[in-house]
Amino acid sequence: MPDPKQSHTNSDQQGERKKTASSTLPKAVACAEAIRAGDRQALARAITWIESTRADYKQLGKEILSHSLPHTGNSLRIAVTGVPGVGKSTFIEAFGTRLLDEGKRVAVLAIDPSSSLSHGSILGDKTRMQKLSQHPDAFIRPSPTSGRLGGVALTTRESMLLCEAAGFDILLIETTGVGQSETAAHSMTDLFLLLVLAGAGDELQGIKRGMMEMADLVAVNKAEPANSQAVSRTKHEIESALSLMPQPLPDWSPSVLTCSSLKNIGIDEVWKLVQDFTRLSKTTGAFENRRASQAIYWMHETLKEEIIRIFYRHPDIEENLKQTEERVKNGSISIYEATTELMRMAGIKQPS
Amino acid sequence: MPDPKQSHTNSDQQGERKKTASSTLPKAVACAEAIRAGDRQALARAITWIESTRADYKQLGKEILSHSLPHTGNSLRIAVTGVPGVGKSTFIEAFGTRLLDEGKRVAVLAIDPSSSLSHGSILGDKTRMQKLSQHPDAFIRPSPTSGRLGGVALTTRESMLLCEAAGFDILLIETTGVGQSETAAHSMTDLFLLLVLAGAGDELQGIKRGMMEMADLVAVNKAEPANSQAVSRTKHEIESALSLMPQPLPDWSPSVLTCSSLKNIGIDEVWKLVQDFTRLSKTTGAFENRRASQAIYWMHETLKEEIIRIFYRHPDIEENLKQTEERVKNGSISIYEATTELMRMAGIKQPS
Repeated sequence: MPDPKQSHTNSDQQGERKKTASSTLPKAVACAEAIRAGDRQALARAITWIESTRADYKQLGKEILSHSLPHTGNSLRIAVTGVPGVGKSTFIEAFGTRLLDEGKRVAVLAIDPSSSLSHGSILGDKTRMQKLSQHPDAFIRPSPTSGRLGGVALTTRESMLLCEAAGFDILLIETTGVGQSETAAHSMTDLFLLLVLAGAGDELQGIKRGMMEMADLVAVNKAEPANSQAVSRTKHEIESALSLMPQPLPDWSPSVLTCSSLKNIGIDEVWKLVQDFTRLSKTTGAFENRRASQAIYWMHETLKEEIIRIFYRHPDIEENLKQTEERVKNGSISIYEATTELMRMAGIKQPS
Repeated sequence: MPDPKQSHTNSDQQGERKKTASSTLPKAVACAEAIRAGDRQALARAITWIESTRADYKQLGKEILSHSLPHTGNSLRIAVTGVPGVGKSTFIEAFGTRLLDEGKRVAVLAIDPSSSLSHGSILGDKTRMQKLSQHPDAFIRPSPTSGRLGGVALTTRESMLLCEAAGFDILLIETTGVGQSETAAHSMTDLFLLLVLAGAGDELQGIKRGMMEMADLVAVNKAEPANSQAVSRTKHEIESALSLMPQPLPDWSPSVLTCSSLKNIGIDEVWKLVQDFTRLSKTTGAFENRRASQAIYWMHETLKEEIIRIFYRHPDIEENLKQTEERVKNGSISIYEATTELMRMAGIKQPS
């Protein structure tokens, strides 16, 4: 069972928080400046704070983010998704290296809350992205693993903004392809790239359909010569599935490419199409519109997270929460009575 | 992109809400009584209200729930999960029918927020559960599809409580087996039953591991005679994987059974083991402990949902939200400035 309080403070941390509160602001400014100057350790540390479940660290992370905001928004944000086993890490290694060759700076982030369960689907990433992980112009960050998807996605988006402030040109947001992470990734990127596997069975079509509806670009991965029949069958199947779905842009039908990340075939073509799509969506205004609706979505997500965070930091809540939990545990009050009581303590009034 | 405001009211609905506010309470009491008396339409309607995104309907649903609470808690809650294609619906049809034969009343609920993407993975359920869906002692309800997982799961749990008030003895909570829905299902059930497929590949092991850690009971489904080699290989693999994981109860190692839902083989054995597990966990106190920790978890989930719901119903928020959204959209303020502004409007103070 996940931690019920998730990213919220608990009373044990109060002392620590008070101690650091007075010195937080200069520290945040210094860190934000270090990030802008290209200090990777500062970036990594700030992301750790953003991801932290400790109230004082989280606060520090938020302040760094707020100082970094004026320098965000200038990268191209790409979601890279596909079912487990499709070869996302290998693709990102090949594609990212291609971008580095062109002088781009590349950051890779992940949304994979399931790794809190499986302890591993993303752990191997750095080893599967050897070139990228050693390159000075690349930055790889595994998924935050704690908490529910909404919180994880919000954290990933905030880390993405920090990477932009650090001057990365291209952000690759990797997801696991098994659930709602894709919707989250779609809501924070300019282009949604779906990787599919040649000759994969029908069983996962239910998920793929939802993912295909979001796709701006589809690449059939593992398109090695030995595989060519399965590859062209899959390509046709996907093209016909896509033809039944609404177009992502008025003048853009999602193209289906084939590539082999392992043999480095077709990666140039993917990059070319990414650029074509970006150019078109910027020309038609679709790029800006998408970012604008995304901003609304994330405003609400941020609001919700902040309201809850502030609630749990209310002094009366910090003082009485444990006791209320005990009474729920031993059955002396229902969870609904407890909820009403705690809200009253925090001064939240039920609408009349 | 999902609806940013999710289950919260918007200003268009204000009039409607005010109109119904005065007559809500007697209606809620009447509906709660009808549910207890076994009125299935009342139950279905109340669940629709609980799931509703309209503030007035939601409020009515909450009141019905609150009147139903004293009559909840008496069922056995079972999570039935497994990857897509494992045959969950067929299993539930066979298992549920077995329970009905014994005179049990059975309700089937689902947690599958991904169906909001794929529009379908759960839609076919009623047709795949023909006997159950027509039996007077069974009640089948597909997953609410809107909103994020946390909200969907909370709604499912509340619907579960209403089913208990309606006198159902066994609740089966079906999940898709592809993401965090399993954690949610685990956090609201007394027994976690994992279905696996004989001879399935390694690709989904990352997910299965997390699910296996939660399993109290594992059944290898589609164990037809033609399949027997793959079945016994899978059974052994799972047994050895389980032997490395912590036991769900001190005196219980999760058993691995084989069954064929289609040919109705092994279903009796599953039911027998479910009863053994329940008896043991009730004797040792584990049953009560699990429900107690679950109550804490859901208290926090309910709190969060209520706090957010009340925020969006604040008159100043209802009046100014659209305008603030516009300013975020046209870039005149950042989402963080908007968040601060809206919280100030609703009287939420930042902790000093």
